[in-house]
Amino acid sequence: MEFKILKKDNNSNARTGEIITNHGIVKTPCFMPVATLANVKTLTSEDLKEIGVEMIITNAYHLYLKPGIEIIEKIGGIHRFMNWNRSIVSDSGGFQIFSLENVKIVEEGAIFKSKIDGSTHFITPKKAIEIQEKIGADIIMTFDYCPKNWNDYKEVSKSVELTIKWAKICKNVHENEQQELFGIIQGGIYKDMRKKCIEELESLNFKGYGFGGLSIGEPYQETLKITEFIIENLPYEKVRYFMGMGMPFQILELVEMGIDLFDCGMITHIARTGSTLTWKGKINIKAGRYKDDPNPLDPDCDCYVCKNYTRSYIRHLINSKEITGLRLNSFHNVYFMIQFLKRIKEAIISDKFIEFKKRFENDWKREVE
Amino acid sequence: MEFKILKKDNNSNARTGEIITNHGIVKTPCFMPVATLANVKTLTSEDLKEIGVEMIITNAYHLYLKPGIEIIEKIGGIHRFMNWNRSIVSDSGGFQIFSLENVKIVEEGAIFKSKIDGSTHFITPKKAIEIQEKIGADIIMTFDYCPKNWNDYKEVSKSVELTIKWAKICKNVHENEQQELFGIIQGGIYKDMRKKCIEELESLNFKGYGFGGLSIGEPYQETLKITEFIIENLPYEKVRYFMGMGMPFQILELVEMGIDLFDCGMITHIARTGSTLTWKGKINIKAGRYKDDPNPLDPDCDCYVCKNYTRSYIRHLINSKEITGLRLNSFHNVYFMIQFLKRIKEAIISDKFIEFKKRFENDWKREVE
Repeated sequence: MEFKILKKDNNSNARTGEIITNHGIVKTPCFMPVATLANVKTLTSEDLKEIGVEMIITNAYHLYLKPGIEIIEKIGGIHRFMNWNRSIVSDSGGFQIFSLENVKIVEEGAIFKSKIDGSTHFITPKKAIEIQEKIGADIIMTFDYCPKNWNDYKEVSKSVELTIKWAKICKNVHENEQQELFGIIQGGIYKDMRKKCIEELESLNFKGYGFGGLSIGEPYQETLKITEFIIENLPYEKVRYFMGMGMPFQILELVEMGIDLFDCGMITHIARTGSTLTWKGKINIKAGRYKDDPNPLDPDCDCYVCKNYTRSYIRHLINSKEITGLRLNSFHNVYFMIQFLKRIKEAIISDKFIEFKKRFENDWKREVE
Repeated sequence: MEFKILKKDNNSNARTGEIITNHGIVKTPCFMPVATLANVKTLTSEDLKEIGVEMIITNAYHLYLKPGIEIIEKIGGIHRFMNWNRSIVSDSGGFQIFSLENVKIVEEGAIFKSKIDGSTHFITPKKAIEIQEKIGADIIMTFDYCPKNWNDYKEVSKSVELTIKWAKICKNVHENEQQELFGIIQGGIYKDMRKKCIEELESLNFKGYGFGGLSIGEPYQETLKITEFIIENLPYEKVRYFMGMGMPFQILELVEMGIDLFDCGMITHIARTGSTLTWKGKINIKAGRYKDDPNPLDPDCDCYVCKNYTRSYIRHLINSKEITGLRLNSFHNVYFMIQFLKRIKEAIISDKFIEFKKRFENDWKREVE
């Protein structure tokens, strides 16, 4: 994997570049739709190509439980399994495992019971890498310890200690050169902890870093502050991946700081509950006001859903619990995000990112539901 | 609407022809996917075009309740509403209304409470036509009385009486010449009743007839017998539409008798519960035997699902309750049906229908699950 920064915005820390994997060029800043179970919910890989998605993220923990890694391996890896020949990131699943209620954490890893059949599993950093090597994504992540509480210094401290220890093991056992291993930085909102984690991980020289343990309950201003701190302490040329957050407003703020990668399951989740992203704001397509609205979901959008279907029809489908409604709304929302990132990249190239950000925030706020 | 019979099979009563509507040519025998709520479940109109669907059927009763006829009318009719510029049939909804538990039948029509908001509705034959004119399908159906019990001669007798009376009213009030009105024949398994209904309806000279009140509990052999009887008593040049049934085996038997039109919600329904139609039989794609099967759903199929995805992947998606799995399986099943009808038509043209039927039945039975 290669990462090239092509342009920095003159008026902010926003930057645009390219991640080059075996499966293509990923222009950054990049928004990755979430394919937890090897599928971006309601969409096919053909849809994602049509939308212009360059990289998606899947989850090793979930795939490990279902369908099981051996199955994906036997079919020929995740790209073949889901018929997606562009780039894929797999998260190690640390975040998901440490969110479980009954997880037991030991020095060597995490022990938990499967939510599917109650069987007991012991995931070590070594195992997390083995799993991800079998899945076969282009970029894989170290096995990290995400603390349950954002404001428990002691727990954060322990999480940093183990995250560092495990990152070293991950780096050691990772053999497949076709896959790039990114480190995950823990440390909560504590600068000393983040600094320690960065220094230790940087000594292992990862090409990219996931910003972990954020947006787990801490005030949003704290998230932004510590993100800025992490960025300041990372070498400029490393990929900066803010894990698990990426609604439009957040992306603007994080891109401004210099983040390169995002993933966010909310984009498709809210599509299925009836929220539609438009250039004027988020609308609730289930609302009565749209019942006979002949306009597309977003009059400023040129996706196939907006070219062919009315708000009235999609509202009807979603309110009638028709799967096609969830599908059309999901397609549009992901398309919106890809276009949004495209405009962000264009703005950075022409040193107009701040202008773009202000205009977007202004337009977006105008919408009243 | 025009109906031309182009070829009769030399060795059976099977026939192939064309129904020409304002929205295109529909080759018969034709299988219509069911779009009850203006949507073939999980699929888009683009999917249906790609599959090669020529005509779909929607339901006036369901659309009347949701989203409401005024909305469809305001958007510009059902074709615009669902972005489908090929042919559409609308069923009057007689069958659905008479299936309701709390329906009250009077000489003038049917009174029932909405399952959505409990409001009371009175559907008369006149109203049924008005509704269907506003929906704007190419072929619409008379408002018929479908008996609740298949073996209650008295009820069937009453249903025939009212079905005839209402058909006359429908014919009288129907004004829109862009829409063809088909009659629906009732009469249960009773020849005298069917004969009476046919004679009265034929005096109104419909261009096509729905075979109603079948497959409502009577033994399948009775269904076939009375179907044959109805066909014998109908002029040869009229469209024969067997309503609500159309699994592959049934279609073969009914085409052999000379049926031209089918609709069947089961094709997409079973897709969503994990049944996949293949040229060798119906398989349960959720079964463990497919967990690492690298083959397409049907190795003999060339739909995009079969070209791109494995049984293993689709099984994983459906077993993980991923909507995309339901979607891929539905696409394949509808594609299968369209190809199945295509081969039937080819067989009729070359006088090989019986041969085709035998081969299909033989191949299909070989499959063991």
